[in-house]
Amino acid sequence: MNKNPIGVFDSGIGGLTVVKEIRKILPDEDIVYLGDTARLPYGTKSVDAIMQFSIENAEFLISRGAKFIVIACYSSTSVALDVVQKKCSVPIIGVIKPGVEQALAITKTGRIGVIGTSLTIYSGAYEKAFKEFNTRCEILGRACPLFVPLVEEGWLDHQATELIAQAYLQPLKEDNIDTLLLGCTHFPLLMPVIKKIMGDIHYVDASVEVGRELAQQLKENKLENPRGLGNLSIYLTDLSMNFKEIGERFLAEPMRNFSRISLKGA
Amino acid sequence: MNKNPIGVFDSGIGGLTVVKEIRKILPDEDIVYLGDTARLPYGTKSVDAIMQFSIENAEFLISRGAKFIVIACYSSTSVALDVVQKKCSVPIIGVIKPGVEQALAITKTGRIGVIGTSLTIYSGAYEKAFKEFNTRCEILGRACPLFVPLVEEGWLDHQATELIAQAYLQPLKEDNIDTLLLGCTHFPLLMPVIKKIMGDIHYVDASVEVGRELAQQLKENKLENPRGLGNLSIYLTDLSMNFKEIGERFLAEPMRNFSRISLKGA
Repeated sequence: MNKNPIGVFDSGIGGLTVVKEIRKILPDEDIVYLGDTARLPYGTKSVDAIMQFSIENAEFLISRGAKFIVIACYSSTSVALDVVQKKCSVPIIGVIKPGVEQALAITKTGRIGVIGTSLTIYSGAYEKAFKEFNTRCEILGRACPLFVPLVEEGWLDHQATELIAQAYLQPLKEDNIDTLLLGCTHFPLLMPVIKKIMGDIHYVDASVEVGRELAQQLKENKLENPRGLGNLSIYLTDLSMNFKEIGERFLAEPMRNFSRISLKGA
Repeated sequence: MNKNPIGVFDSGIGGLTVVKEIRKILPDEDIVYLGDTARLPYGTKSVDAIMQFSIENAEFLISRGAKFIVIACYSSTSVALDVVQKKCSVPIIGVIKPGVEQALAITKTGRIGVIGTSLTIYSGAYEKAFKEFNTRCEILGRACPLFVPLVEEGWLDHQATELIAQAYLQPLKEDNIDTLLLGCTHFPLLMPVIKKIMGDIHYVDASVEVGRELAQQLKENKLENPRGLGNLSIYLTDLSMNFKEIGERFLAEPMRNFSRISLKGA
């Protein structure tokens, strides 16, 4: 047993969709969340920059007592998970592997689609993660960069959103995938429009799988805190105009305890 | 006469649309451009953060010999022009006032629409700028946040872009504006779709007006360099995957001379 909090970081507030799932499966654990909102989005930054930001984020969470770190950012997991693991003393998981495992467990035909931001898809991080399982499945990646601003604008069921989703997803539909992995924190909010286009296939929301994987690893490492208060502290490197409105959309509960903090470079 | 370069900064590479217009009207001047790509976009950051970033950007350009500074970023001009002017020793103009003057000169009915990012519109910077001219014109602002990622994605004439433009611009159409001011570096690339919806009214592209205003102020301050080489040096605080492709879309010429530099906090 370990009473210290779980640390979670993301480039922004989208990672609160992961926090939401962690709180469902581990309601007693304390969580410290860091959103590097002063430097978001990571998806358009260079690999070097993302590595440096990710290390700073992890160090901050460790300075706040984190016993375990979840990288809730796809861009960061894609390019910086290894380097953060090497630099830090606590166990760390990213958002990619748990979703990959679930997609492999659930697919029948072995044709799996993955959608994410441009960096997540073009970095080849998913291909690499699937390869580690020696799978023969065919992995079809598709970048959907406009999904992020559409979610932040709150246009979850606008006709334009449907047209954009249609344009992005049509190639995956034509490729007859039977499983679609949502590889971005923002995308679960577009699940209804995605399902409308893709129809009756299997869907994997990586945030849910990360929660499960975390619960299992806490148990294996004897790090659980089954009698905690379930406190959530949110730190952001910048407080933008509408972060609270958007954040609560992701978290699906009120954001009560948040502060602005400065990192070295943020 | 002054052989030093003109300094131009923006949060990213969108400000190259302003550089493009400056090079048209002042082809002999050297230009040093700084795009703070490591910290873009500014539009979602707090006022404090934008002020701090803007001062750092101006100081960098002055360290590179800038004789005059153009803030080619709407978010930065909206909230940080005054504070940068106070901190720096060279003349500085922003992107807002020149467009406002032109809109006032061109309108017949006095009903002027302004479109921009959320921060530009909600900061009230345009209302304030119009008020300084003691105008009786009615100013109708409209935030169009999805226009930026649509331009960066290169979807300039996609059906979804037209639907989104329709949703954003319809209220301005119903308000019978006779002049539309494009208050964002990215928006001139959407001029065809905007014109399709808004029809035969007056359009003001602030980038063009900034070039004119700069030429006039250089003359008045005896700072022109009519026999320069017209060199353009581009500095970016981060080099993202596709900055060159997008940058050349804005600049309308090849990007030859660019380097990555580090600012204090970027």
